Amino acid sequence: MNAEILCIGTELLHGDITNTNAIYISKELAKIGVDVHYQTVVGDNPKRMQEALNLAFKRADVIITTGGLGPTQDDITKNAVSDFFGVEMIYDEESKIHIENCFKKFDKKMTENNMRQAYFPKGAKILDNKNGTANACIFNAKEVSPEKCSRDNNIVISLPGPPREMQPLVDEEVIPYLRKYSDFTVMSKKIVVFRLGESRAETLIMDLIENQTNPTIAPYAGDGKVVFRVTAKAKTETECHDLIDPVAEELLRRFKGDSFILENDDLQETIVKQLIEKNISVSTAESLTGGMIASNIVGFSGVSKIFQKGYVTYSNQAKIEMLGVSKELIEKYGVVSEEVAKEMARCAAEKSGANIGVATTGIAGPNGGTEEQPVGTFYVAAYRDGKYVSHYSTYGGLRDTIRIRATNNAFELIRKLI
Amino acid sequence: MNAEILCIGTELLHGDITNTNAIYISKELAKIGVDVHYQTVVGDNPKRMQEALNLAFKRADVIITTGGLGPTQDDITKNAVSDFFGVEMIYDEESKIHIENCFKKFDKKMTENNMRQAYFPKGAKILDNKNGTANACIFNAKEVSPEKCSRDNNIVISLPGPPREMQPLVDEEVIPYLRKYSDFTVMSKKIVVFRLGESRAETLIMDLIENQTNPTIAPYAGDGKVVFRVTAKAKTETECHDLIDPVAEELLRRFKGDSFILENDDLQETIVKQLIEKNISVSTAESLTGGMIASNIVGFSGVSKIFQKGYVTYSNQAKIEMLGVSKELIEKYGVVSEEVAKEMARCAAEKSGANIGVATTGIAGPNGGTEEQPVGTFYVAAYRDGKYVSHYSTYGGLRDTIRIRATNNAFELIRKLI
Repeated sequence: MNAEILCIGTELLHGDITNTNAIYISKELAKIGVDVHYQTVVGDNPKRMQEALNLAFKRADVIITTGGLGPTQDDITKNAVSDFFGVEMIYDEESKIHIENCFKKFDKKMTENNMRQAYFPKGAKILDNKNGTANACIFNAKEVSPEKCSRDNNIVISLPGPPREMQPLVDEEVIPYLRKYSDFTVMSKKIVVFRLGESRAETLIMDLIENQTNPTIAPYAGDGKVVFRVTAKAKTETECHDLIDPVAEELLRRFKGDSFILENDDLQETIVKQLIEKNISVSTAESLTGGMIASNIVGFSGVSKIFQKGYVTYSNQAKIEMLGVSKELIEKYGVVSEEVAKEMARCAAEKSGANIGVATTGIAGPNGGTEEQPVGTFYVAAYRDGKYVSHYSTYGGLRDTIRIRATNNAFELIRKLI
Repeated sequence: MNAEILCIGTELLHGDITNTNAIYISKELAKIGVDVHYQTVVGDNPKRMQEALNLAFKRADVIITTGGLGPTQDDITKNAVSDFFGVEMIYDEESKIHIENCFKKFDKKMTENNMRQAYFPKGAKILDNKNGTANACIFNAKEVSPEKCSRDNNIVISLPGPPREMQPLVDEEVIPYLRKYSDFTVMSKKIVVFRLGESRAETLIMDLIENQTNPTIAPYAGDGKVVFRVTAKAKTETECHDLIDPVAEELLRRFKGDSFILENDDLQETIVKQLIEKNISVSTAESLTGGMIASNIVGFSGVSKIFQKGYVTYSNQAKIEMLGVSKELIEKYGVVSEEVAKEMARCAAEKSGANIGVATTGIAGPNGGTEEQPVGTFYVAAYRDGKYVSHYSTYGGLRDTIRIRATNNAFELIRKLI
C-alpha cells in the first residue's frame, strides 16, 4: 500500500510556515510499511486542490490531507473531497457540540463561521479532535462511493493543519486504521557516522550498497554527520531484526570508532536517554549556541533528573562572571579557542555540580570572521572527572547551520563521556 | 509566471529530515512575484522523478529542484533532466577543478564517484556552488530544447539539497535570473494578533476579507498568535505600499492593542531588531523553555550589543542559586506561578545588569500535570525598571509546541517593554 501526503495551505506555499506535518506523517507511515511516494503542497485554491486530489487518487492508495479544516473562508478541504466523490456534505450534531465545548473551555466567543466545522462528506468516519475545534475524518471511497474508485484502496484522510491537533490524530486514529490494510512491517536502524564525508563513507561500504535488496542501505548527510539507514521489510518485527542486525554490525565494523547506532531514531534523543538511564547529569556553557544545547536537552521529557542548570555566556564578561573562566586565559588564547572551550566545560560542570560539562565558543557570522578564524570556526568541548574531549570545525555556512552543527557535535562529545 | 518546487530525496519521504528548502525558495520567489502553485517531494526513484518532472512541466513555468546532485548512487536529478529534454550529459572541466579544490580545502580524500558531479545536461548554465562540491545548473528549455517546451517559459533549475549550499545559490543566482521574467513586484505586510482566536479575529475584519482583491488578506494561526498577511501585486514597490498601507492600518485599528506589524517578516526578528536599534539589553531566566528564548535571540546576528547573559534554571535549586529567587516565594506560590515568573524576570535583569529580564516557568509535559495545573500551564513574565508584564496560558499540546508558544509569548512581552 502506498500513500501521498497532501498539505493544504497558501501559507505553506508562501513560505510563512515550515511544513512539519509531512515529515511527521511520513515517519509514522514508514513504521507500518506504508510507502509514501509523494508529498504535495497546494494552496487554498479550490481548482488546484481538486486537481491535486484527482492526481493523488490515480497514483496513491491512501491520501492524507492536512489543513483546510479551519473555520475561515479559505478552509475548503472537506468540500473538495465531497465534490470529488459526488457525495453531499452533511451536518454532524456531535461535532457541533464538540465545537461549542471547545469554546466554553477556552472561554472564547464562538462565531457563525465555526459551524462550518460541523459538516462532513456523507459516509465519512468522523475523528474526534481533542486539541482543537476541527474534527477530522476518514473517507473510505471503496465503501462509500466505489464507482469513483480508481484503485483497490482509495482512502482519503482529512486532518487539521496545526501539528498539535494533527499529531495525536495520526497516532490514535490514522495509524491503527491503516495498519489493517498493510501486509508488512518495516523497520530500520540508523548508523550515524561523524567526521567522514558522505562520499568517503559510502566508498567504505560500496560493495554492501551495490548488493542491497532487503535490507536496503540509504545514506543522508547533514549538520556534521552522515546517517545510513538500514531498512528491512518483512512479515514480523523479528524477521526485520534478523535482516537488519548483521548489516548494521558490518557497517559499524567498517566505520570504526566514529560511528554508532541511533537507538531512538534521533541523535540527541539517543544520548539524552542514555544520560537518564545511567543517571549522568550534564550542564551547559554556551556562547556560539546561546542556549540551543540546553533547550534541546529540555526538549525531551524526564530530563529534570540529569539537567538542572545551564549558562548562556555570550559575552567575554559573562564567561568570566558566570563561569569563572579567567580573563588571562581568554586574553592568552582568544575567546574562540580550544582552551577556552575546555575551561568553560570544566567550569560548567564544577559550578553546577553536574557530572559532565559541555561548552561551545565560535563565530556564527555573517560578520566577525577573520582570515585566521573565518565564519564557522568553532570549538566544542566536554569535561568529566578530569577528562576532556573536544572538537574543532571551520566548515562555514549560514548562522543557524553552524549553530546546529555545533549543537550536534556537543551531543556527540557528551556521548563519548557517558 | 508560476513555479513548482520539486524536492528530491527519499530521506524526505521517510521523514528523516524536515523539508526547509521548500519554505526558503517559496519565500524568495514570493518577493519577486513568482507564484508557487505546488511543492512536491519525490524519492530518489528515477521513474517517479521523471513523472513528477513531466507533470511539473505541464503545469508550471519554472521548476526548481533541490537534492539529488550529490556523489552517491541515488543522486540522479541531472540525468532525469537530460532524459526529459533529450539532451546528452556533458563533462565540465571547471566543475571538476571545483570538486578537486573542495577536497583539497577540507583535506578529505576524493573518491571516484565524486566525478559524477562534473556532468551536466548539455546547454545548461552552470552555477558555482561556493559551499559544497555539487555545482548547480539552470536549464532553459526554450533556448536549448524548444521542441520539448510545453509552456512559454520552461526553465528547470537544479540545486543541491543541503540548505547551506542551496540558499546562497537562490539568493545570488536564481532570484536575479528569474527576476527578468517577472512583470510584477509582490509585497506584503504581516499583522500579528495575540490573544484572539483565528475565527474571532477574522470576524472582526470579515467585511474587509469578503471585499478583498488587491491587496489580499490571508490569515494563518500558530503558536499562540494569528497572523494576517496583506499582500499587494503591482508594477513597483511604491504602488504596492500604497495599496497595502491603508488596509494594514485599518486592521490595526480593528484589533486594537494586541496587534502590531511584523517589520521583518518574523515576530522574533522584528523584536530583536528593535532591541538593537534602541540599544535595550535583555537577559533570560528560563525553566520551561530551557534556553530556547536565549538561543532564538542569539540566532540573529548583531545581538552581542543587547544580549550577554542567560540563565537556564530548570530545577528549583537553580532558580534559587543562579538567580536568587527565594525559597519561601517558591514554597508559597509554587514554582509554576505568576509570582515566581515575575521574580525570575526581575532577578535576571538585576543580576545580569540588562534593561529587561524575561522568564518562563511551566509544565511542558507529557508528565507532571495536575488537575489544577494541567500540562501546558505556563507563566511568562518580563521586567523593566520596576514594571512587570506577564502572560498565563493553559492551552495544552505537545511538549515542543508548548515551549515554542511560551517563547513567542516571551518575545511579545519584551516588545511591550521596548
